[in-house]
Formats: sequence, structure tokens, C-alpha cells
Amino acid sequence: MLVRVRAASVCGTDVHLWAWNDWAQRRVRRLPLTLGHELSGEIVALGRGVKGLEVGDHVSAETHIADGTCYQCRTGRMHICENVEVLGVDHDGVFAEYAVLPALNAWKNDPKLDPALASIQEPLGNAVHTLLPEDDIEDLAGKRVLVTGCGPIGLLAIAVAKLFGASQVLATEVNPVRLALARKMGADRVLNPVEEGDRLLASVLDATDGHGVDVSAEMSGHPASLHLAFDALTPGGRVSLLGLFDREVSLHLDEAIIFRAARVHGIFGRRMFETWYTVKGLLERPEFREKMAQLITHRVPIAELPRAMELIETGQAAKVSLEAKW
Amino acid sequence: MLVRVRAASVCGTDVHLWAWNDWAQRRVRRLPLTLGHELSGEIVALGRGVKGLEVGDHVSAETHIADGTCYQCRTGRMHICENVEVLGVDHDGVFAEYAVLPALNAWKNDPKLDPALASIQEPLGNAVHTLLPEDDIEDLAGKRVLVTGCGPIGLLAIAVAKLFGASQVLATEVNPVRLALARKMGADRVLNPVEEGDRLLASVLDATDGHGVDVSAEMSGHPASLHLAFDALTPGGRVSLLGLFDREVSLHLDEAIIFRAARVHGIFGRRMFETWYTVKGLLERPEFREKMAQLITHRVPIAELPRAMELIETGQAAKVSLEAKW
Amino acid sequence: MLVRVRAASVCGTDVHLWAWNDWAQRRVRRLPLTLGHELSGEIVALGRGVKGLEVGDHVSAETHIADGTCYQCRTGRMHICENVEVLGVDHDGVFAEYAVLPALNAWKNDPKLDPALASIQEPLGNAVHTLLPEDDIEDLAGKRVLVTGCGPIGLLAIAVAKLFGASQVLATEVNPVRLALARKMGADRVLNPVEEGDRLLASVLDATDGHGVDVSAEMSGHPASLHLAFDALTPGGRVSLLGLFDREVSLHLDEAIIFRAARVHGIFGRRMFETWYTVKGLLERPEFREKMAQLITHRVPIAELPRAMELIETGQAAKVSLEAKW
Amino acid sequence: MLVRVRAASVCGTDVHLWAWNDWAQRRVRRLPLTLGHELSGEIVALGRGVKGLEVGDHVSAETHIADGTCYQCRTGRMHICENVEVLGVDHDGVFAEYAVLPALNAWKNDPKLDPALASIQEPLGNAVHTLLPEDDIEDLAGKRVLVTGCGPIGLLAIAVAKLFGASQVLATEVNPVRLALARKMGADRVLNPVEEGDRLLASVLDATDGHGVDVSAEMSGHPASLHLAFDALTPGGRVSLLGLFDREVSLHLDEAIIFRAARVHGIFGRRMFETWYTVKGLLERPEFREKMAQLITHRVPIAELPRAMELIETGQAAKVSLEAKW
Repeated sequence: MLVRVRAASVCGTDVHLWAWNDWAQRRVRRLPLTLGHELSGEIVALGRGVKGLEVGDHVSAETHIADGTCYQCRTGRMHICENVEVLGVDHDGVFAEYAVLPALNAWKNDPKLDPALASIQEPLGNAVHTLLPEDDIEDLAGKRVLVTGCGPIGLLAIAVAKLFGASQVLATEVNPVRLALARKMGADRVLNPVEEGDRLLASVLDATDGHGVDVSAEMSGHPASLHLAFDALTPGGRVSLLGLFDREVSLHLDEAIIFRAARVHGIFGRRMFETWYTVKGLLERPEFREKMAQLITHRVPIAELPRAMELIETGQAAKVSLEAKW
Repeated sequence: MLVRVRAASVCGTDVHLWAWNDWAQRRVRRLPLTLGHELSGEIVALGRGVKGLEVGDHVSAETHIADGTCYQCRTGRMHICENVEVLGVDHDGVFAEYAVLPALNAWKNDPKLDPALASIQEPLGNAVHTLLPEDDIEDLAGKRVLVTGCGPIGLLAIAVAKLFGASQVLATEVNPVRLALARKMGADRVLNPVEEGDRLLASVLDATDGHGVDVSAEMSGHPASLHLAFDALTPGGRVSLLGLFDREVSLHLDEAIIFRAARVHGIFGRRMFETWYTVKGLLERPEFREKMAQLITHRVPIAELPRAMELIETGQAAKVSLEAKW
Repeated sequence: MLVRVRAASVCGTDVHLWAWNDWAQRRVRRLPLTLGHELSGEIVALGRGVKGLEVGDHVSAETHIADGTCYQCRTGRMHICENVEVLGVDHDGVFAEYAVLPALNAWKNDPKLDPALASIQEPLGNAVHTLLPEDDIEDLAGKRVLVTGCGPIGLLAIAVAKLFGASQVLATEVNPVRLALARKMGADRVLNPVEEGDRLLASVLDATDGHGVDVSAEMSGHPASLHLAFDALTPGGRVSLLGLFDREVSLHLDEAIIFRAARVHGIFGRRMFETWYTVKGLLERPEFREKMAQLITHRVPIAELPRAMELIETGQAAKVSLEAKW
Repeated sequence: MLVRVRAASVCGTDVHLWAWNDWAQRRVRRLPLTLGHELSGEIVALGRGVKGLEVGDHVSAETHIADGTCYQCRTGRMHICENVEVLGVDHDGVFAEYAVLPALNAWKNDPKLDPALASIQEPLGNAVHTLLPEDDIEDLAGKRVLVTGCGPIGLLAIAVAKLFGASQVLATEVNPVRLALARKMGADRVLNPVEEGDRLLASVLDATDGHGVDVSAEMSGHPASLHLAFDALTPGGRVSLLGLFDREVSLHLDEAIIFRAARVHGIFGRRMFETWYTVKGLLERPEFREKMAQLITHRVPIAELPRAMELIETGQAAKVSLEAKW
């Protein structure tokens, strides 16, 4: 499908690519490359044989392009396709006037939905999938959740955990802009690891009557946060790992996982398309849409991408929405 | 443990026993009998060897007294103990100044929690267990839920479904007091089967884009509602059955369950004590406590039990809290 | 894909269509129609753009043709696609020299696998899905299973339940050929409802120390078996319903499901393609292949379909394999 | 209850305590201490108020003594009780003529069951729980399983995986006695890491068509095996960690868990008493009892415990059963 872009939002991956860091240089296989994958647009043309879509439909898109035939794809795990390719990394992306995408990756939106909100459904899906890797609600409803790291997906996870009935959401973060947003997303307590120092674990345990949390969502990629995510976990609790570490990490598995009977989930993308239906339903709730809108701290024309990148790299912005103004 | 009762709330079971209907005459094995099982009180004495409780603790109680040794009790299903006995039915209950209860059934409360709210944790547990018989959140979060019948537990289920992130909660009810409360609990649409007549199913399907609901919670015990619960269900959805039918019901299993690949859960009590922890956590959220308080439409001294029963039998009340005023 | 048929097996659906009974007359939308859907064959031609298959591959096929775009298809439930079409019912089937099938429905086989065994993977998938509707093994491993009705899928279910570690498999059946096969499949006890009469339930309970079974698989479509499936179930157990009833059935839901906290699963087809992978793996075990071969009581050339039908209708055959001999 | 010991088997924990290594010196809080916790015996006396047991009953015992009142105990996770105490470590054990045990820990046996087999139900429970931490059979039935390390529990896990329908069980081991037993337990292929060297991972991937295994059970506590357990895992697969590492381990979480969307379970003990019921049912199968009997390579009088320890420490024995011969 050919899509006219209406809005696109900036992801951490885009920032790494823009900075052309080590990871980006290893990962990108062809240049030039149009960045961007968090999208809201309107279909202007469709390939032959495409079913279920029409010109004029408003759509977002799943970022992972699956082959549809591998073991994972045929067993309900298309999001971890063995031959996955990524929009804006392996294929030209959406920071553009028009983009070409596989029709199978389309997600139809309500035309009335704010395009900026529509474009953040993809990272919102990450947050939902982090909290629900296997649909286990009793861990969340009426329970305690720790989110380590309040980047955009961490902030989304706080809002989602509260929406799923968590009695208490604790979060860790050092950046003051994100700290403030974590509270707005509904965190009951936000701890600054720098200020807490050695008291950090004790503070989490105190806040949870000594039991620890039922769920940890590790969103930072920092070894210290990883250790906290396990040390603060109640026996039998679960940890979702979304933040990337980029190197080996040392862990005392006996204490962290085995004696604790912990369950650990590696989180990659979001389920195609179970998570998208959940996300769509959540955005039908007006009070949740309002919360999400607060996360979009800046709206910038696509052509001013360098300014968007600077806002993010200097820690001033949470989520930046790029708008189709030329 | 010996408990001084602070508040007790009236359940439908109590109403049947009070009316001394056919079921009650068949079920009760000894008289006289003190009614009541939804409790909030203070421990005034403890048997020898009781661990984890102290005189002065504020407690509610699980109604089901399990033997602790049967197959079900030893496999995490104590709530369906083969030899279960019920407080206020097989044992003297709590509509009294003092009550004697097994310490294993105690549930410790925050002393600051309104005793009337503390006493409705037990039916709130029914509602939570109805929605989460196997902890499956993806059916709820961002999804559509139908509650057929808005008695107290149906009303609680509406509030709980919204709290667990349902995008849309539909409900059916005829009594105008309950209809109004269903909206206050957060139902997006309340349908009156009498007014809807033959359009009832079509109205539910219209409200859900023709897909039907992902979860039906049958709370009424009416065959017509049972049929609606299945007919309105999306393929692969699930139905929880809590309302009792008191007689055989005719069902077209091929259409209702088999071709639809429906999952059906019989709901009895609540999990001991997984559900209680969830309930406790939900009540830690201030906005949820406020909603729950709205359900307690009347507060009456225990000694005026006949008046409480009349309020319920005439359809004026949702939940009646009995207070320890003598 | 164009497939040269090597073997095909006869399903109950084919028998109904052949008999042209009421159901068949209501269900079939176009004539003439080639029957058959349980297949083993070799690919002789492929459409353009087909990935992952090659001419010469040995294949079986999933019978359900899904649209790939509906709510169910996009949420891991393709087997209950809202617009499902069925091979040999809505499309020409495989009792033929050649058949045309959608490539997405192909299932690649080991070329060394006996074509007759390859063709029964589809009903074997029904049996696996009946026992594992939600992957719950603790109900099976070391547990007690009741299979009501020993048609081909019931017989397969007995073998599969034993393979999944059931300590005891009980079965009911009246036909002597099937009774004998039920024992060969591994049933620990086969009860003849005609001989047992009023003692039937008591016999099942006696055989299970009074606890009842953990899982019932209802394969017969008879109301009496349905009642047995529930009455013999331990509290908290589960029932899978695969047999079709063709009319309303009367059930005392309170006793059957609600007080028993039963879980009920409607079974339709098999998961695409989770179940196929499981089936493929089971057939890699030599002792299981041998058991399966015993079920194929007759091998008949495709051209002699009328004789195959007669063998089945007169109760002489369990599974009949049609062979590509012309 | 007071139990006359009939047989007891030796666990790795007993070996560490006997060797009085660092761990043992840190862990044991009081001396003298009677070792041993894998038991088969006969009840000779019961405390007052004990229900469901009688003098003369044949019993084994769960090793973990739970408090019954903590968060974990009240939420179906008694096996990870916050205040767990261990038989033969915190309390006097069963390498004795008589032993005193809490009645709640009793597990009733069929008096006809070989006492040596009855005593290994406890480690067999470890193996079952390792393979079924969350009852997920589709990972096992018809799937590929890797067991790293063929100590007694690893050997049990091989037998259990085959019993649960695994199509292929791969194992790693260096000790020739254990290697031979691994094959007897049903391993389709046993790899010796010393002989394989750098080819080890490639050998596992080759044996699984390049897909890798669906489940890894890490039973060795060796970092190299841990890495293999993850590297050989298909995306979306799961790893159970039972072997203890005794020190920090370095892991590349991105590759091992996150991009792979792996699920990891820490395994501690076995579920009380879900796992025991499964184990009991498995031992009702004659062919499985025979396999288990092969694992008991030596039977030695309790009084000759030093000889038993030597047999284990020198790698001559798999499982040693101590017999009540004085």
C-alpha cells in the first residue's frame, strides 16, 4: 500500500540511527535509508489482490515485516519471525511525505483519532506486551509493579499498569522531565536512583510492606536496574526485559531467579495483532487518550527532524510527534 | 477466632434463607441458625496455636470453610473443596454481636478501611473471579464485556471490568435502581431487555461493530440471558457462569459452544486467597473505593435486619450494609 | 498449489455428505462437489509468488481455508476464522487424482512417512486439540481422562491421552470393533453403556477412587454421554466438546458446571498451525506410528469409494484410507 | 507424625552436607543434624487433631516445610514459602530408623509401591516441575527438549519429557555411567561436551533441523551449559533453570533472552501438591515404574551411608537407595 504520512513519532531506534553509532553502523545494510516507523497516514493506493483495505482508510503500521511461513509465524509468534525485517531499518521508513508498506502490516484507525496518538500505538504496544507477555492479569490487577527506567515506553508502561488495575506502580528515573511525567502517568512513587543511593532497594521494599513487587518491567538497559528488578521481586513474581544492554551482564542466577522461582520474559516488539487490538481498545477510553496526549511533549514538522532529535538527545522531550507540514 | 462484628452486608443467599424458600428448606441442616457471612470485625480472642493474627486485628472472612486435605484443597483449588461448609448456612453466621470463625478463613484489613467496604470484599471477590477465572487479561484489556444481570455482583463486575481496562462494558437489567447504578459503575451501555424485546441481540452486536463481545459474565440465572451471553460472543470468546438456574436449561451446544470454540467457566466462590489479594489491592485505589461506596445504597443497624430484607426484596436497594449499632 | 493425491482418508463429514442427509442438503451450496479433505500428496505445480514450497514436496493440508484478515485470524485463532471455508464442502476436495489447494494450507511431510498415516494427521490434530485446547498439561500428565464415544477421533484421543502421560484413560463405546480398538489404543478400561446401564457413572467413579476424572473428551454427540462427561468430572476439571448434537440439549448448569467450577471448551478444527507441529512431532515416535497404523483398518482404492462408505456405515471399519490406485 | 523409615534415597544436597563444603557450613544452623529427606516409611504414631492419615499408612514426604500463612502460601505457591524450612537441613532428616515430620507434608503411597521408588517421588517431582513450571504442554508434546546435565534429576527429566510426548530429547553429559543411563531413560541423542568441543551447539541445531529446541532444562549449574541452553533455543522457547551456579554468571541478555523472546523459569522444589499428584499418576504406569527402577543403580543399608556417599562422589552411581536393614 502507498500511504500519505499524516504524523510520525520518533523512537529511540531512530535516535541511534541518526547518531550513526556503533550499533547503527553494524545493523544497517543499505544506504541511503529513510528513517522512521511509528506512523499515522492515509492510504492513497493499493496493490492488486489486497483484501480488507480501501483507498482513503486511515492506518498505522506494525513495524516488523514477517515472512508468514516460518515456524514462529505459523505458531502464533509472528512478532518473532525468524526472518523479520524492520521498517525504517531494513526498508525505507516513514519520515517522508509518502511511504510504501506491506498491506499485511496495516492497522486501520478511527479517522477521528488524533494522528499523533495513532502513531504512538506501536510503542504503546511494546508497553502492553511488556506487561502482558502471557496474558497474566493476576500479577497486575490489585498488585505492585516496578518500572525501571522512564523513557517513552517506560512512561507508557506506567499508564498501562494503572489502567490494568495495579494497586501501586513504582518507577525509577533520573531525568527531571521524565520524573515529572512518570507521576502524571500515574506512578504512585518515583524514585531517583542518584538521590536514593544505597537505600534504593530498601525504599522499594518499604513501599511494598517488605513483600516486594509482583511484576518488574526493566526498561532501561542498565545493569543496576536489572539487579533492582530482581532483588525487589516477590518470590514467584515475574520480570519483563525490554531495555537492551548491548553487552554481557553479570547476574547471580541462584538468588535472582532460581531460589526466587522467578519467571522472566524477553520482550521483542508486540504480538501481531493481539496487542494491537488491546491498544486500540485502550485508546477508546477518553481518560486514557488524554493521558497519552500529555506524553507527546513536542510536535514538530517532519522537515525539522534535526530539531526533534536535539530535543530528545538533550533530555527535554518525552515523545516527539512529527507532523506532515511542509 | 472470636470476632466482634463491626459491619456485615446482606447477600442474595441471606435473602433466600430469610424467605425460607424451597432451596433454603432443602439446604439448611440445622436450626436455629444465625445468618450472614459478609463481615468486617475485630478479633477479641484467638485459639491456641494460631499464627499470623493478633487480638485487635481488623478482619473480614472467606465464607467457604475448606477441609485442607482433599484433592482440590491440595491442588490450589481450596475454593471448591469436596467437603466445603459455608458460613451462615452450615455454621452460625455474622449477623450478630460476636462470631466465631476458623482462623484460616481470616483476612486482615487495613484498620482505616470503612467497615462497610471491608464487608463487601467477599462479593467483590466473586466479581473478580468471574472476570478472571484463569487470569486471562487479554480478553478484558481493551476488549468488550457483556454483563447479563445487574444484581450486586453484576454491578461489581461492571466496575471491575472497567478497572481491568475493558474498552466497552455492556449490561442488561430491568430494575430502574440497578439500571442507574450500572451506569455509575461505568457501563458504557445498559440495555433493558423488556424495552429492547427482539432487538436485544442486534443491539449488542451493533454496539460491537458486529463482532460481539470477548467476554460474557452471566449473573442473572435467566435462560434468556444465558442464550444472549452465548449468541453475543465472538468466536473464541469466553463465558463465565455465576447466576444459578435452579433447573435444567436447554441449549444448542453446537451453535453456542462448539462451532464458536467458546470457553465456559463455572464460577463458585473466589480463589483462596489469590482473589482476596487482588480485591485488597483494588480497594487501595481511592477512585475505586468511592465507586464501591456508591453501591452501598443503605446502611441499617443489624437489629433492623427485617427492614434490610424488605429494602432488597422490593428492589429499592443494591447493597445493604448492616452496622453494629444496638 | 496443484497436488497429485497419493492417499486420502474418510472422515465422518464425508459419510454425511455421501448419505446426502438433512445436514448435507442444508450445508452444501454448490453441486457437483468432489468430496474429501484428509490428504497426502505431492506438489506438481505452484502458483506464482508462493514461498517455502517446491514442486515435488510431499504435503498434507489443513481443511479450513481462512481469510487471514478477520479479528480471529489476526489474533492467533485462524482456525475459527469468521469467514472460514471448508475443503471438500465449500471447495472441491481430494477424493480425486489431482486437487487444487491454497498454498497457505499446505503442510510439508517427511517423504518417508506412509501416505495413509500422513492423511490422518488432520483428524489426529482434532484429537490433540481436544485434549489441549489451552495447553494445560497438568490436567493430563498423571491424571484421569474419560473419552465418551470411540469413533475415529475418540480412538485417536485415547492414544494421544496415553502419550501425554495420562495415568488412566476410560472410554465408552457400544460397537464391538471400536471397543476392541479402544483397548489397542491404550484405554485402561472400556465401558459399554448398554451393558453398564444404570451402573455406568458408578463404574467410572469406582475406577477413579470416587474422585472422578480430570478431563472429559465428549466425542459422541449423545446427550447421555454429555451428562456422563460432566457427572464424572472432578470439581475444577475440564470438558472438551467435539461431538455435534444437531439439536438442543437439556443440562442442569448449576450441578454440571457452576458448583463444579468446570471449564468447558468448544472444539472446532485444530490450531493453525500449532497443532500440526505437535502432530508431526508425535508421528516421529516409532511406537506411536505403529499404534496409528492399527487404526487404519481398511485400505481401498479411491475409485472404490462406495465400498469404503459401506464399510464405515456398517460399523466394520474404524479409519478407511483411500489409495491412489486407478 | 512419627514414621518408621523403610527406604530413603540420597540427594545431591545430602552429598554437599556430608562433604561439609562451604555452602554446607554457611547453610546449616544447628548441629548435630540427621541428614536425608527422600523418604518412604510407615506411620507409627500421629499427633492429636491430624486429619486424613492413619497409623499404618505408607507415606513419603514433601521436603519443604511451609508456614501456611505467608503471601506465597496463600496464593498457591506454598513451595516458595517466604519462611520455608527444609527437612534434613533445618530439621532432623530421615537417614534414621524413625523420623518425626509435619502431617501436612505427608504424601500417602500405595502400600504395594516399592519403597525405593516411593522415596524418589520427591526428585521426580523436581523433574516434572522443571518441565511443567506453568503447565504448558504444547512446548513438550511433539516438540524438542534439551537437558543439559544428567545427574539424577536430569535423568528423570529425560524420562518425563519422553512420557509427556516429546518427539526428541537431546542431552549433554560427560560421565559415562550417566551417559549410558541417559539413553536408557529415552534420550534420542546424548552429546558429550568434551568430545563435541566447539561443534556442540552446531550438533544440537543440526539435530533439530536448524530450528533449535523448544524447551531447555538446565540441570548442571555450569555456565557453558547455561549458554548452550539459550543458544540452542528456538525464538519464543522456554528455559527452566534448576542447576545452581553458586556464583555470578555472565550472560548477553539481548541475544540470550530479549531478541529471542525467551521465557525463563527459576525452579525451586515442586508444587505442593499439584506435582505430587502428577508424579503419583505417572508411577501408576508399569512401563514408567520399570524405567525408574533402572535409575536406582545401588541399594545399600542406611547404616552404610559412607559407602553410599562414596559411590556417588566417585561417579559410579546414579541414584542410591538406602534400605532399612540394620
